[in-house]
Amino acid sequence: MKTYGVIMAGGGGTRFWPLSRKKIPKQLLNLSGKDIMINETIDRLSRVADYENIFIVTNAAQKSEMLNLVDGRIVENHIIAEPAARNTAACIGYAAIELIKKYGDGIMVITPSDAYIKDVNKFADILKIAVKEAENTNKLITIGIKPTFPATGYGYIKYAKSSDAVKTVLKFVEKPDRETAEKYLADGGFVWNSGIFVWKASVILEKFKKLQPEIYSYLQRISDALNKPDEQRLIEELYPLIPSISVDYGIMEKSDDIVVVPGDFGWNDIGSWDMFNVLHAEDSCGNIRTGDALTIDCKNTTVYSSGKLVAALGVDNIVIVETPDAIMVCAKDKAQDVKKIVDELNANGREELL
Amino acid sequence: MKTYGVIMAGGGGTRFWPLSRKKIPKQLLNLSGKDIMINETIDRLSRVADYENIFIVTNAAQKSEMLNLVDGRIVENHIIAEPAARNTAACIGYAAIELIKKYGDGIMVITPSDAYIKDVNKFADILKIAVKEAENTNKLITIGIKPTFPATGYGYIKYAKSSDAVKTVLKFVEKPDRETAEKYLADGGFVWNSGIFVWKASVILEKFKKLQPEIYSYLQRISDALNKPDEQRLIEELYPLIPSISVDYGIMEKSDDIVVVPGDFGWNDIGSWDMFNVLHAEDSCGNIRTGDALTIDCKNTTVYSSGKLVAALGVDNIVIVETPDAIMVCAKDKAQDVKKIVDELNANGREELL
Repeated sequence: MKTYGVIMAGGGGTRFWPLSRKKIPKQLLNLSGKDIMINETIDRLSRVADYENIFIVTNAAQKSEMLNLVDGRIVENHIIAEPAARNTAACIGYAAIELIKKYGDGIMVITPSDAYIKDVNKFADILKIAVKEAENTNKLITIGIKPTFPATGYGYIKYAKSSDAVKTVLKFVEKPDRETAEKYLADGGFVWNSGIFVWKASVILEKFKKLQPEIYSYLQRISDALNKPDEQRLIEELYPLIPSISVDYGIMEKSDDIVVVPGDFGWNDIGSWDMFNVLHAEDSCGNIRTGDALTIDCKNTTVYSSGKLVAALGVDNIVIVETPDAIMVCAKDKAQDVKKIVDELNANGREELL
Repeated sequence: MKTYGVIMAGGGGTRFWPLSRKKIPKQLLNLSGKDIMINETIDRLSRVADYENIFIVTNAAQKSEMLNLVDGRIVENHIIAEPAARNTAACIGYAAIELIKKYGDGIMVITPSDAYIKDVNKFADILKIAVKEAENTNKLITIGIKPTFPATGYGYIKYAKSSDAVKTVLKFVEKPDRETAEKYLADGGFVWNSGIFVWKASVILEKFKKLQPEIYSYLQRISDALNKPDEQRLIEELYPLIPSISVDYGIMEKSDDIVVVPGDFGWNDIGSWDMFNVLHAEDSCGNIRTGDALTIDCKNTTVYSSGKLVAALGVDNIVIVETPDAIMVCAKDKAQDVKKIVDELNANGREELL
């Protein structure tokens, strides 16, 4: 059975503003200084799916820039453009029918486009276990991340402890408070929900049919339109009507045959600027300097310059980002709120900065 | 008797980096948004000295830019260029001999070029008292600033309490610690040393003769050279040899006939970026935004943009300055250390940023 890589890359580019923009969202940024995140994701996936079997689902606005930047890794018709953002359930369902109808059933290895993974070999080993399980069973398989600290920013998966690599999922739990997160960490039977899924395309469609019949009916109508002359027009008409729900809520939490493969490969979703230290070495005072940057009497301060000199003096726990048309300075513990700046610029009609 | 204005404008431009540079030091900056500081200084002085009797002492590097920027207020030969920086005693002595030899004895009203004064009318009234005293006596007159808080960054002058506007100086005291400053404030018999002096040119030269004979001998030799064909060459030869000492140490503290006119006219030396609030209104959270600036969830934060958008998020007590070639972010209570950045850039050979 073929293994497909499916990369969900619809991110809107607000969390790493001012470096990320609508047209250059985080997955197209080279935050590590090595390559853009989506290329690192493609190359990682190629350990379990041939390049010619890897697909990207993104939005129409990003498609042409993305095609440019993946630099030959992915051909144009493997970059699937959603006519509208309808959350992960629609995205995955659409990819499933596209694959089945045009390329034949197979195992989908679905991942976000913009996470960091330190140990690519370990990651590939975990994926191989999951692919084998998907081949041999009709289960929904998710990759869990062994927690390394009591994170309050991720959802958790509780599983039945066993000596098997593939474990039965007992329940999904929402982002916990600190105390609860500490309990999960101590318990040892919890992993972070990475948003990486492995299953047969036909199996997930069956799940849609059973658990999300409305979404399924739209997927059926889109499926009927595929390979027809007015395919594009029909998809543009139907897709925006699909109910918007995440695959976690819509499918995973409602299913009783989910398994998880816990992995420990140095995963980080690099969700905001305060995670920049995952990608770059800190000096002895916890400072990171990228580009033409100077830190004097600073602690735990990240300075990202894309051109001009940025000098920081006597500040602690600050992120400073310089781009050709905007400068951002934020408290590290407010890095999750960078979207507030984007919202304000939006409200002020500052399109040129978004 | 004529009244001369003498503006000491040799500042090197490090304290307001990156806005101030060697060629555009603080006195040539428009920090208030109204006019450059030296022009505000000239216009204030014009209340007691006609424009054609106002002189600037600066360094050779700044002279041509300064001539441009004073915009016709001062003619070229009234901008006296020191061949080297030799502190305020030499600067004032040089101005005194230049005035006497070329324009005749008169009262010198000597001020720094880069202080802020809120109430120009009150300032002029105080200066008029001092000028009258200088006319009627041979005393050295200094303008004292009634302290409004226990400042530790200024020198103080202790005077004999009396009901007269002109008071006898008892002693000069160095920058005090906080506790001492509080005592001075409570005592009521202390004023800040503003660096504003009023005296006859002939009187201060007599003081040099008596108290600083070595400096005086150089001044004499320079005086002999004035109006001669090789004036410029001789000054360039002699001036750098003058001992470097401040007029406070060299003359004021050694004299016993000093008087002070205490004034209360909203004086501030705007010594560093943390004083920017003297020039600009703060919002209800203590933030100041100049240019294309955005503050979200910030407190007591100053953002100065000279062009690009600068967005600050969730930071307190920070100064952010954007210029076309450099960005500076510093803790407000470290604003006095901005020179450290300049020193570092100097050490790194970054001439283009100095």
